[in-house]
Formats: sequence, structure tokens, C-alpha cells
Amino acid sequence: MSASPTVSPAAAATFRRCWADLEPVGREADGTYRRLAWTQEDLTLRAWFRAELATRALVEHVDRAGNIWGWWGDPDADGPGIATGSHLDSVPGGGAYDGPLGVVAALAAVDELRAQGFTPHRPIAVVCFSDEEGGRFGIACVGSRVLTGALEPARALALTDDAGTALSQALEDARVQGDDSAPAPEACGPDRQALGRVARFVEVHVEQGLSQEASGDPLAVGTAIWPHGRWRVTINGTGNHAGTTALEDRDDPVIGLAEFVLAVRRSARQHEARATVGRVLVEPGGTNVIASRATAWLDIRAVRTESIEAVLADLAFAEPVRESWTAGVDFDDAVVTDLATATHQLGLDAPRLGTGAGHDAGILSQAGIPSAMIFVRNPTGISHAVGEGAREEDCLAAVAVLARALAQWSSARAAR
Amino acid sequence: MSASPTVSPAAAATFRRCWADLEPVGREADGTYRRLAWTQEDLTLRAWFRAELATRALVEHVDRAGNIWGWWGDPDADGPGIATGSHLDSVPGGGAYDGPLGVVAALAAVDELRAQGFTPHRPIAVVCFSDEEGGRFGIACVGSRVLTGALEPARALALTDDAGTALSQALEDARVQGDDSAPAPEACGPDRQALGRVARFVEVHVEQGLSQEASGDPLAVGTAIWPHGRWRVTINGTGNHAGTTALEDRDDPVIGLAEFVLAVRRSARQHEARATVGRVLVEPGGTNVIASRATAWLDIRAVRTESIEAVLADLAFAEPVRESWTAGVDFDDAVVTDLATATHQLGLDAPRLGTGAGHDAGILSQAGIPSAMIFVRNPTGISHAVGEGAREEDCLAAVAVLARALAQWSSARAAR
Repeated sequence: MSASPTVSPAAAATFRRCWADLEPVGREADGTYRRLAWTQEDLTLRAWFRAELATRALVEHVDRAGNIWGWWGDPDADGPGIATGSHLDSVPGGGAYDGPLGVVAALAAVDELRAQGFTPHRPIAVVCFSDEEGGRFGIACVGSRVLTGALEPARALALTDDAGTALSQALEDARVQGDDSAPAPEACGPDRQALGRVARFVEVHVEQGLSQEASGDPLAVGTAIWPHGRWRVTINGTGNHAGTTALEDRDDPVIGLAEFVLAVRRSARQHEARATVGRVLVEPGGTNVIASRATAWLDIRAVRTESIEAVLADLAFAEPVRESWTAGVDFDDAVVTDLATATHQLGLDAPRLGTGAGHDAGILSQAGIPSAMIFVRNPTGISHAVGEGAREEDCLAAVAVLARALAQWSSARAAR
Repeated sequence: MSASPTVSPAAAATFRRCWADLEPVGREADGTYRRLAWTQEDLTLRAWFRAELATRALVEHVDRAGNIWGWWGDPDADGPGIATGSHLDSVPGGGAYDGPLGVVAALAAVDELRAQGFTPHRPIAVVCFSDEEGGRFGIACVGSRVLTGALEPARALALTDDAGTALSQALEDARVQGDDSAPAPEACGPDRQALGRVARFVEVHVEQGLSQEASGDPLAVGTAIWPHGRWRVTINGTGNHAGTTALEDRDDPVIGLAEFVLAVRRSARQHEARATVGRVLVEPGGTNVIASRATAWLDIRAVRTESIEAVLADLAFAEPVRESWTAGVDFDDAVVTDLATATHQLGLDAPRLGTGAGHDAGILSQAGIPSAMIFVRNPTGISHAVGEGAREEDCLAAVAVLARALAQWSSARAAR
């Protein structure tokens, strides 16, 4: 493997300065981040992003779902362009890179192109999607889903957070606090005009596993988002006194829960799926009380839907109730190929990688916009937690590849 | 087996009327009871009990721990007497019988003796202990422990409930609300004088298992309280993204939790102990997040301490941290024998039964007061939950045996 591609000092400085700007926002004492959609932290980040657009004279368009686009060139005059970006919100207890890396890489790529003296033929946009993580209102990619019509605005606006605040109220509150990029609830909805400006979309993202660290690849090209579902399993038992009920008279649902958890792992291994029980509730939850009910939430993802179905068949004894289902997405072959070519041209291998995580790029892809992703190696493989990270050198390599791909697409006669 | 012993119509009427009085207090929509110590429900029950004492002209003494005694005869003049009773508070989600059965049986036994024209030679007391379940402040038998000196008053008063209210504050609040049987915090403490009035103690209690239902015995004589401990086990893992982390890269503490739960059951079976995991906490608890930590609370009881130690040895891999330990109690042989004799005299078998549950009778026994218990058959075996129950016929049989034993002890020249 050759040395990583470099960017201009200006683009590297942008990357470092942006990272320093973002570092303190929503940072908790334990080093994790709490940047929930439409909270004060999120409003701070959105204002920061808009200031970055203004500094670069990128023309701001806020779509009807509250996603913020900054255009270099005029897509309404010169035809649809190429967009790149990600999101700035986080899960509770999240890391620094999931989201912000894609936004900062996009800004740095614009600065890299400008440092190279590039002038776009096709317009280029930097985008910040709103409410991607679902960490506050429970549904992921709300901004891109509402934009594309994948989520009914009425349903989105009625979502509530743990404090019972509806998204509609959170948007009103954001507006009262001066964020005029927050859509008024009555104006919130799909935005064909905003979508029509986008001919291609690329999202740079930290890898959320260890495969690149294992193979030694700073970058990988995202080719697919796996199908993904969530189920709930309820195990009923009989509440009783822990001191006086003989073992043979017990109907203890915690035993069933334990057997279920191990069955999930066995089946996932057998069918090459990723299946997780990360949330459980044991009721009533007294140390000296045999529980009366245990509930487990089950997350399953796999390259192929058939693998998920095979796991579910193994777990049919527990009668899982489906809570959500998201079909898999195959990213656009041409965009994938172009990103791989740009990576090779800059001297790196470009392994192709599917991911079990959902992204705005998946939502846009389902809406018919040719999209793909660039993954940046993550030394720990950890995501949505404090260990999430990436080496600066690898991040700058992603900026270089992104800038090159943007330049090639923007220079082409037709973007699609 | 012969027919169950009967009581006078007066005592049976007392039993039914008391049960009807208590039935609505603290009853939840699901049929369970919530009568936490020193809450409004508990104050209602304490006032009810004091009115029952007054109706019978039993002389009320409230000890320095807030336990309420009603004396028939004067223990300060005529020497120590025989006490019987239990408690009126419940666990959250508790049943109707655990506690109230022993109090109501005691009142009915007094009425039975009076219906028989009995006059005590040795005084007889009916007692209601305070804060037995520990359902609010986390430690069981606070009333009897403080009374006997087994629990430091300063430590008891500093206990807090889930809302952060200290027991000292709860006592002040109870006094403000007019319960002058609640001890002023500065007066709360062991009460040698109150304890010195008691030569014997008997507690009638619903069985909290199925052994009497299986053997067909309406009554059993409680001979021992098993040793009992609680431990906490913490399983650390690595929080991560459920969709992107390969199975082989996971350090998922929920898997460890499941294996621990099954190891607990296996070991308990092997060593004839009762071991329970009824409370678990999985953090951070997101459906799409591999947990970073799982905590399990472990309750172990057995006839012999050695069995508990054997289970702990099997579970040493999980490094259990002890949260509490209560040594076993063997009840007084003479009291057990007398109760068995009274039961036989009334035509019933009197199987002897140890219990895994803690009771005020155990605390008094440890303080040197000869004590024992009478268990009443429970058709479901369920306790601390909605199914907890006893047949009225069996309850009245307990009243008959209790009245007979009280009469025999009270008639004897010396109570001890």
C-alpha cells in the first residue's frame, strides 16, 4: 500500500479548525457526545454549519424538512448538481465522528477544490441533514425521509421524545430560539424542488466496524445498506417470592430471557447475520422477587434478507413481534465505480463494503438519487460510543478522494 | 385428615369484617396492593389497627420504633406476656395476605378467647410491626430491627426511598399528618422496656410456597428462617453499534448476563438452594446498541449456609459482590412444640416448615424472645403478587390454633 493521498494545507487547516470548533459542543464529562435533534446543542451545530456556508459564499437553501444545503453554483439555472455531506446530531452517548466527519469532509473538499483553482461546471452542494440518528424521537433519518416522502410529515411531527415533547413542538421551539432553518410544522413536508437539484449524493462516514482496520485500508467504498429489522419479544412468567418458591414451582421469565439471548447469538452465527439484544426489561424488577415478565428487543441485520428470515425462523418459539423493517439498499453502480476509481487514482485500494447501519445516503438512494458512501477506517471499530474515532491522515485521504470525485463529476458534460 | 377446627361465630365475624375493612386500602387497578411504609395507605392501616385495639379496650403501647402493641392485661404489673401479630405494609405489587393475615388472626384470636369467656393469667398482646417489607426504604423488618437494636437508628433514619425521601422525613411527615404513633426521629431507637414485656411471640403468616397445598395441610408450624444473602454482579462489555459490529468483534455483556442467569439456576438445583435473578439492568439499553454493561442482582437462600456457599463458589467467575447477609434462625423448640400440640389437639397434622422468607418473628427470635410461626396453606403458592391467597376456612383454623396456644401459655403459672 502506498502513502495516503494528501490535501492542500488550506483544506487540512479547514479540517482541523472545524474539528476544533465542534469538539466542545454537547461533549459530556465521560467524553461522549449528546447532540440530540433540535436541542440547544443541535441548534448550535446548525448555526455553525450555516456560518461555514456563508464564509464560503455557498448559497443556502433550506428544504421543507429542515435539511440545510449550501450550493456552489446554481442548480436551478445550471441543472442538478452533486451533493455531499452527512449530519451533525448524535445518539445519546455517541462518538465525535458519526455524522460530523461527513459534514467536515464536505466543507474541506470544497476548500480543497478552491485551493486547486477549480471552478464547477455542474453545481456542487454541501448538505447537513437534520435528525439523522433518531436519538430523540425514535425514528432515524427523519430529515431525509420527510424530504423524500418516505415518512409522512403528520407522522413525523407527532413523534415524541422521552419528555413527551412532540417533534412539531421541538421545531416551534427551535424557531422561537432563532433557528429559522427549522421548518414551521405546517410547512414541513416532502420537497421535490430541493430533491430535483441533486443528481448524485456522496456521504463520507467513519467505519462502524473493524474490517478496514483489519485489512489496512484507510478508505472503503460503501456499496450497500443491509436490510434491517427490529422485533420485540415478551416472555411471560409468574411473579413470586424469591425466598419461598421452590425451583420446581417457578415460572421465571428471566430463565426464558437468558435462553432467548443465547439462541439469538447461536442463530446469528449460523446464518451470518448480526443479531443483538441490547435492551431488556425485567418486571417488576425486585431483587427478592421472581419476575413476572421479561421483554427483549431484538435487532437483526444481514447482507441478505434470507439470512434475517432464517434467524427469525430459529427464534419463532419466542414469537417475535416486528416493530420496524427497512429493506436493503444497493448503492448506484456508477457512483461506486467512480469513487473506487478516484481512490485508486490517489494510490489507495478501494475495497467495497456493505454496512449494517442506516444512513441518509440510503434514503436518498431509495428516492432514486444515485448515491454511495466513502468509509474511513476506525481504529477501534467502535461507534455510537466514546471509542469512536479515525486517524486524521485517513480523514484527509477521504477529503482528497471526495474532492477528486466531485471535480470529475462536476467537470463532466452531464451529471446524469 | 379431619375437618378443620372452627372458631366462634364472633371470631369468624371479626375475621370477615376486618378483611372487608382492609380490602380496599392501597388496592391497585390490577388487584395488587401498594401499602408502602409510612405512606398514606400505611397511615390509614395503622389508624385502623389502633381503632381495633381501642374497640377491644386493649391498652396501646407504641414502642420507640413505631411498632404498635395492644395489651390485654398489664405486662408491667403481671410480668411479661405472649404477643402475636405481624405487619400491615406491603411490597409494591403485593398480595392481600402477607402481613395482614397475621394481624387479623391475632385480633380474631382475642375475640375468640373472649367469646370463650377466657381471662388471661399472663397478659396477651396483639402487635403491628412497622415497615416490615422494606418495599420503600430497601431494608426489611425495620420496625423490629430498630426495636431490638439489630439496626442502628441513625442508619435506619438515613435510608431513602426512590424519591430521595429519608425515613426520618417520612416519620416527620407521618406525625404532621396526625399519626402520633410514628416515632419522632430523635426518639427513635431500641426499646428494652417494650421488648421486656414480651415472653413469647407467634406470627401467623400465609405460606409463600406450595408445600402445604401439595401435602394437603391447612396449617404448618414454622421452625426456621433460612440464611439469606443478596449479591450484585457487574458484567462489563464494550458498547458498540448493533448493525456494524461483526459477531466475532463483539464484547456483549448481555451474552455474559444470559450465561450467568443459567449458571445460577443450574447451581441452585445442584446444591438445593433457591437462587434468583429478578432484577437486571442493561446499559445504555438501546435496541440498536450493543450494551456496555449488564448488572444482575442475585438472591440466594437455602436450609443450610453451606448450600449458599456452594452456589457462590460455582458463581465465583462472575465475582459477586455481597450487598446483604442474614444468618439463619431456628425458632424456639418449646414454642414450636406447643404450637404443634395445639394444632394436633384441634385435629390437624402439624408439619414443620422452614422458610426462605424473612419475618419479624426471626428478628425477635434473634433478640432472644422465644418465637415461632404458623403458616396457612396458599392454594397458588404465590406471594408478593396478585395470586397470593388463603382459604377462609384455613385462616380460621389458624385463629383457632392461635387462640388455643395463647390460652395455654396465658394460663400457665409462668410464661417463661
